[in-house]
Amino acid sequence: MSEASLQPGAVIGILGGGQLGRMLSVAAARLGFRTHIFDPGTAPPAGHVADQVTTARYDDEAALRAFAQSVDVITYEFENIPTAALDVLEALRPLHPNRRALAVSQDRVTEKGFLNEIGLKTAPWAGVTDLASLEAAITQVGTPAILKTTRLGYDGKGQARLHTPEDAGEALAAMNGAEAVLEGFIDFSMEISVIAARSATGEVACFDPGENVHRNGILHSTTVPAKINSALRTDAVLLAAKILNALEYVGVMGVELFVTPTGLIVNEIAPRVHNSGHWTQAGCAVDQFEQHIRAVAGWPLGDGGRYADVEMINLIGDDILRVPEFAAQKNTQIHLYGKTEAKQGRKMGHVNRILTKG
Amino acid sequence: MSEASLQPGAVIGILGGGQLGRMLSVAAARLGFRTHIFDPGTAPPAGHVADQVTTARYDDEAALRAFAQSVDVITYEFENIPTAALDVLEALRPLHPNRRALAVSQDRVTEKGFLNEIGLKTAPWAGVTDLASLEAAITQVGTPAILKTTRLGYDGKGQARLHTPEDAGEALAAMNGAEAVLEGFIDFSMEISVIAARSATGEVACFDPGENVHRNGILHSTTVPAKINSALRTDAVLLAAKILNALEYVGVMGVELFVTPTGLIVNEIAPRVHNSGHWTQAGCAVDQFEQHIRAVAGWPLGDGGRYADVEMINLIGDDILRVPEFAAQKNTQIHLYGKTEAKQGRKMGHVNRILTKG
Repeated sequence: MSEASLQPGAVIGILGGGQLGRMLSVAAARLGFRTHIFDPGTAPPAGHVADQVTTARYDDEAALRAFAQSVDVITYEFENIPTAALDVLEALRPLHPNRRALAVSQDRVTEKGFLNEIGLKTAPWAGVTDLASLEAAITQVGTPAILKTTRLGYDGKGQARLHTPEDAGEALAAMNGAEAVLEGFIDFSMEISVIAARSATGEVACFDPGENVHRNGILHSTTVPAKINSALRTDAVLLAAKILNALEYVGVMGVELFVTPTGLIVNEIAPRVHNSGHWTQAGCAVDQFEQHIRAVAGWPLGDGGRYADVEMINLIGDDILRVPEFAAQKNTQIHLYGKTEAKQGRKMGHVNRILTKG
Repeated sequence: MSEASLQPGAVIGILGGGQLGRMLSVAAARLGFRTHIFDPGTAPPAGHVADQVTTARYDDEAALRAFAQSVDVITYEFENIPTAALDVLEALRPLHPNRRALAVSQDRVTEKGFLNEIGLKTAPWAGVTDLASLEAAITQVGTPAILKTTRLGYDGKGQARLHTPEDAGEALAAMNGAEAVLEGFIDFSMEISVIAARSATGEVACFDPGENVHRNGILHSTTVPAKINSALRTDAVLLAAKILNALEYVGVMGVELFVTPTGLIVNEIAPRVHNSGHWTQAGCAVDQFEQHIRAVAGWPLGDGGRYADVEMINLIGDDILRVPEFAAQKNTQIHLYGKTEAKQGRKMGHVNRILTKG
């Protein structure tokens, strides 16, 4: 490890105290670090396993300053952190992944532009600000298509489908005046994810691609290995590495890809640990959470090797009622997030089912 | 799960905030529970990953009461809890494992008596209170032998070797007036551990026996599978189950066994998660810490199945300096305990090396 590496006992600041912050906090502790969670909500899930918690809004400059001064490095569990907050934090402590990664992934138009610029394929797309630009976009992209706000969308929120050009008005209204992007549909056989990591010294390590199944716009399951041939697996990994290198990225990134008859198409990227990487907790010596912590702490990356086949299944809303069923199953690892209220669509936990035996 | 099972959100009280309490706390969080650590020391390692911490002595009745009233069930990471403290706690909340398990394992003479009573073999032994009883014990047990205090000994502390009967005086002096037990040496080829669990409804599940190597009286490594035949593996598991059933035990127990030409001999039992069970973090869907939490929470046990071969290596004292070396190795999982000072003989962390690939 270099001299710039954080030593055990150092404090890692995490913006966001949801389930990803929670699992990052546990991984940090496993390497001997302490964590400080910053979250506007009271009783964030990560607070149960963190050394310190600050409850404050992202526009509370004094709280942001005190938080930054109490930690050695800052990372985050979600990409939609207000720019002004980042300005305050970054002036005081190193921030990983960097601002460019955030800028690219906070805005779908910037993201797609960046991906195309470095030579990667995306679905056909066009920016939309009003009805005229939407109509132009429909001409370019065709229908069926999907209109998405450029910012703050996730898990199917802020989206509207256009089955025919006549749906334009209704779809635009669903954007509530926000800037949007029209994405064409593509013919894909499978969605896969590459969970990729890049260290402070520029090494890249990727976990095996996983195969994703969505239900109602939310990830339902990820299975590794994905049923793809080795050429495609190599393509996926090289493509992810290209993204991380182009951004001089430090940390873990989730890269969602569509498998199409003409190769891989990038769906979206997330500059953080990713739901489709939760299987690594049961399949790898170093999971995605520890991999991220290693990167932001200046440690060498884990190798990403996989020693078991795994199926990860999300527990959404009332799925939490299935915990007794999973608890009685063999080779099944349960991860609950400590959330009290099981609202519809809310991620309450996940299970990792080990499909191979040693 | 039965109606008596704790629901996610319930609070598990843990006596002792060392590395075992720390890893229990993480396992509890994974099942959606919160934890409250009780420890006399300031800044206990478990505090970094616990929801609440009480810093108080075991003779502070008010603190014990407040602690008990804030939790739903009480468990512990070490067996040497003062009886008076247990009286206070047990009057307020369920305590698992139970008092009998503690009474048996707090005292080597009681423990050996119990084991022999249920038909299990131990090394030859005799209780020692003074020089006369030590001389009688030497006649019965022979030399070489080892004299140990009946209480509070662990990791080779409170022990003295007798190479010949002439060492009696010096060995007795090393006991500082404490009651002791003389144990004869036995001819064993290997020490193995069975990490066994028993649920509130009386199910028993055991992890695969691991093979232990000690250095300077402290566990150095555990490797699974142990190189024993399947008949011996079955014997080990049945023997552990016999102990847990006899004690109406609820939780995880570590059972150390010697493999001898005439079968298995019990070395000692620990009514808690055990250092020789740390490999389960990398080899099993449900590790020993979660297994213990499941038991004390009234959940069904995990199956204990193993899907990888693992070597666990302890990081003792200055071994912590080897972390960069382990961090650069493939298939190696690092667990550090968040202790600031690397004193000689102090357990600072461990690594799990995965020996098989999926």
